[in-house]
Amino acid sequence: MTNQTTGQEANQYPFLDKGLEGIVAFSSRKSFIDGAKGELIYAGYNIEALAENATFEEVCFLLWHERLPNTEELDTLHKQLVEERDLPKTVYAYIESTDKSAEPMSVLRTAVSMLADSDPDAMENNPEANMRKAIRLTAKMPTIIAAFDRSRNGKEIVKPGTKGSTAFNFLYMINGEEPGPKAERVMDLLLVTHAEHGMNASTFATRAIASTLADMHSAVTGAIGSLKGPLHGGANTAVMNMLRGLDKDTDIRAFVKGKLERKEKIMGFGHRVYKTFDPRAKLLRVMAKDLAKEVDMEYLYEWSETILTVMKEEKNIDPNVDFFSATVYYSMGILPDLYTTIFAMARISGWTAHYIEQMQTNRLVRPRQLYLGEKNLPWIPVQQR
Amino acid sequence: MTNQTTGQEANQYPFLDKGLEGIVAFSSRKSFIDGAKGELIYAGYNIEALAENATFEEVCFLLWHERLPNTEELDTLHKQLVEERDLPKTVYAYIESTDKSAEPMSVLRTAVSMLADSDPDAMENNPEANMRKAIRLTAKMPTIIAAFDRSRNGKEIVKPGTKGSTAFNFLYMINGEEPGPKAERVMDLLLVTHAEHGMNASTFATRAIASTLADMHSAVTGAIGSLKGPLHGGANTAVMNMLRGLDKDTDIRAFVKGKLERKEKIMGFGHRVYKTFDPRAKLLRVMAKDLAKEVDMEYLYEWSETILTVMKEEKNIDPNVDFFSATVYYSMGILPDLYTTIFAMARISGWTAHYIEQMQTNRLVRPRQLYLGEKNLPWIPVQQR
Repeated sequence: MTNQTTGQEANQYPFLDKGLEGIVAFSSRKSFIDGAKGELIYAGYNIEALAENATFEEVCFLLWHERLPNTEELDTLHKQLVEERDLPKTVYAYIESTDKSAEPMSVLRTAVSMLADSDPDAMENNPEANMRKAIRLTAKMPTIIAAFDRSRNGKEIVKPGTKGSTAFNFLYMINGEEPGPKAERVMDLLLVTHAEHGMNASTFATRAIASTLADMHSAVTGAIGSLKGPLHGGANTAVMNMLRGLDKDTDIRAFVKGKLERKEKIMGFGHRVYKTFDPRAKLLRVMAKDLAKEVDMEYLYEWSETILTVMKEEKNIDPNVDFFSATVYYSMGILPDLYTTIFAMARISGWTAHYIEQMQTNRLVRPRQLYLGEKNLPWIPVQQR
Repeated sequence: MTNQTTGQEANQYPFLDKGLEGIVAFSSRKSFIDGAKGELIYAGYNIEALAENATFEEVCFLLWHERLPNTEELDTLHKQLVEERDLPKTVYAYIESTDKSAEPMSVLRTAVSMLADSDPDAMENNPEANMRKAIRLTAKMPTIIAAFDRSRNGKEIVKPGTKGSTAFNFLYMINGEEPGPKAERVMDLLLVTHAEHGMNASTFATRAIASTLADMHSAVTGAIGSLKGPLHGGANTAVMNMLRGLDKDTDIRAFVKGKLERKEKIMGFGHRVYKTFDPRAKLLRVMAKDLAKEVDMEYLYEWSETILTVMKEEKNIDPNVDFFSATVYYSMGILPDLYTTIFAMARISGWTAHYIEQMQTNRLVRPRQLYLGEKNLPWIPVQQR
C-alpha cells in the first residue's frame, strides 16, 4: 500500500491522500503530545506522573472531567463501575454462540454495538446520559473480552466479581482466579498508558462519527473497528507474531537487517507524531524486562533490545508503544490476538472523553474529495455495452 | 450545539473545529458533486441519466468497477446477490431475541458487525476478497432490515426470495407479499439516488477506519453508526416526524415562520455542499407528488411544497435529499424509523466502493488536535484533593 501519485490536478491540494497529516482537525483539553520531546500529557498531567501514581479509574475520571477525583468521587466511580460490569443475556448468548474462530476485536465490536439495544439511555444524547453510557461501556468491555476468550477456549465464562479494580477483575475473569498484586499493578499500568493519545486514528473516528450527533455506542463501535487495523491497535499483535517467529538460534541482527534490505516493515517502530522515544515505550520497557525475567522468558526481552539497537543504528528510528507492550502481555500469559482488545478496554476512556467533548463543540465532519474520474458520459443501454 | 470559540491560540489554525470544511481529504473516482450547479455524477454518469435508466444493481457495479456492466456481468452480479441474501443463524437469533424497541439502525449496525464472524473472507484484505465482501454486505443488509422490522412487529420473518431485484426482494420481505412493478421501481429509484455522494460523513468515516487497514466490516459498521446521526441519515426520519406533527388545520406558513423566528431547525433543508436545489431532491419531488396522490395523502405533498416555498422566501434555502424522500417512504407505507436503514442499504454500494478505493491509495488518516488544557501539573495524592 503506497501513497498514490495523484496527477497534476491533485498537486493543487497539498493534503490530498496524505491522511490529513499536519491538519489540525479539532481542539481538545484531553491530551497533548510533543512528538519532538517525547512528551505525553493527559488533561494536565504527564504520563510519567500518572504511570507512577494514578490508577486506571483515576485516569478515567481525569479524562472525563479534566481534573483528578477526590476520595469520595473516586469511591463513587468505583462503585458505579462494579455495578455495571455484568452483561445483558443477549450479549452473553451472542458471545457463547458465535464462531469460536472469530476475531476477538470483531466480537468486541459486535458486543459493544449490541449493548445499545438495552442501554436505558440509548435514545438520549445529553451530558448526564453520556456520562452514564461512558461508565457502562468502560465497565462492560473487560467482561466481553474475558467472556469470549474463555468461551472460545471451551471454558466456562467467569461472571464479573464485585471487588477489586478494573485491572484486578479483568485478570480474575480471564484466568478464573484472583491475580496477585504485581499482576494487577502491571495490568493497571497497561490500562493507564493506553488510555488516551491525542487525535489518533480511532479517536478521530470517534469524533467524526459523533459529529453527525450519532449516539456514543455508534462512535465507540466505529472506534473499535478503527483500532482493529494493523496500522493502529493491531500492531501489538503483529509485533508478538514477529517475535514468536524467531527461535533461540535466530541471529536477530541478521533477521532485522534482512527485513530492512527487503524493505519489509518491522512492526512496533515509528509513529506519525513521535520523532523520538515514545514515553509509553520507555515505561513499558522497564516493565517488560522485569516480567520477562520473572517468567523465564528473558530471551524475548533480549531479542527486543537487539531489534531496538539495530533499528536505531540502521534507520535511526525508535520503538512505539506497541513494541514493548507485546512482550509485557505475552509474559503475563495473554495470547497475542487479545492484545488489541485490551488496548480497546483502556482507550474506551479516551474515546468516551472525546465523544463528550465533541458534543460540546460539535460541527459535522464533512471534508471534500478531489474527483479524478470522467463527467457527463452518455448513457449506453446494457445490450450495447 | 454551536461552534466553539477556541481562543487566540486557535486562530492560527483556520480549520479548527470547522468539521474539516473546505479540506480536500482524498482523491476519488467514485463521484463528483458541483454544489453550485446542483450536479451529481457517479463514476462518469449524471444522476439524472442513472435515475432514468439504471437499476440499483447496475449502479453497484458502476461504483465498484467504475464502468457499466455488460449483460453477462450484470446477470452474474444479480446471481451472486441472490445467493448471498440469506443470513447466518446467529444473526437471525440476535434479530429475534433483541429488544423489540431497539433502534433499527442500531440493530443493523450490530448485525452487520456480526456478519464478520462467519464471513469466509473475514481475515483477508485483498481486492478479490473485498469484492466478495462488498457483494455479501449489499445482499444481506436488506434481509437484516426486513427481518428486524417483522420481528419487532410480532410477524414471522420472511426469508429472502430467489427472484427479483434488490428492491423487489426487500419489499417482498418487508410486506410478506410481492410488490407491483410501480412500487419496485420507486424503491429501486430510492436506492439509486442514495447510493453514493462524495465525501459525506459516513463515507468519510468508512475511509478513515479503512485507513488503519481494518477490515471492510469494521469500516461499514462505523459508517452505519455515522449515518445514524440526525445531522446525516437520521434527517429523513426527522423530516417525517415533523410532518406527522402537523394536521389538516395547521397553518403551514405560520408553522414554518414560527420555527424560523424561534431559530428552530427545519429538517431537510440546506447542505454543506449544495448551494442550490439538490438534484436528488428534484427527482424525488416528482415521485413524492405521484405517490402521495396514489395513496390519497396529497396533503403531505402539499405541506412539503408550502414548507419549501416559505423556506425559499424567508431564507433562500433549498431542500436536500431527505426532504422529499421522507414523503416517498411514508407514502409507500414504511414507518419513519426505518428510513435511515434504507438509506444505509443503498449507501453500502458507495461505502464499499470507497473502501476498495482506499485500499489502493491508503495512508493512515491521523490529523492533529490543538491542545487547550494545562501542562505539567504537579501530582496531588487523592487524600489531599
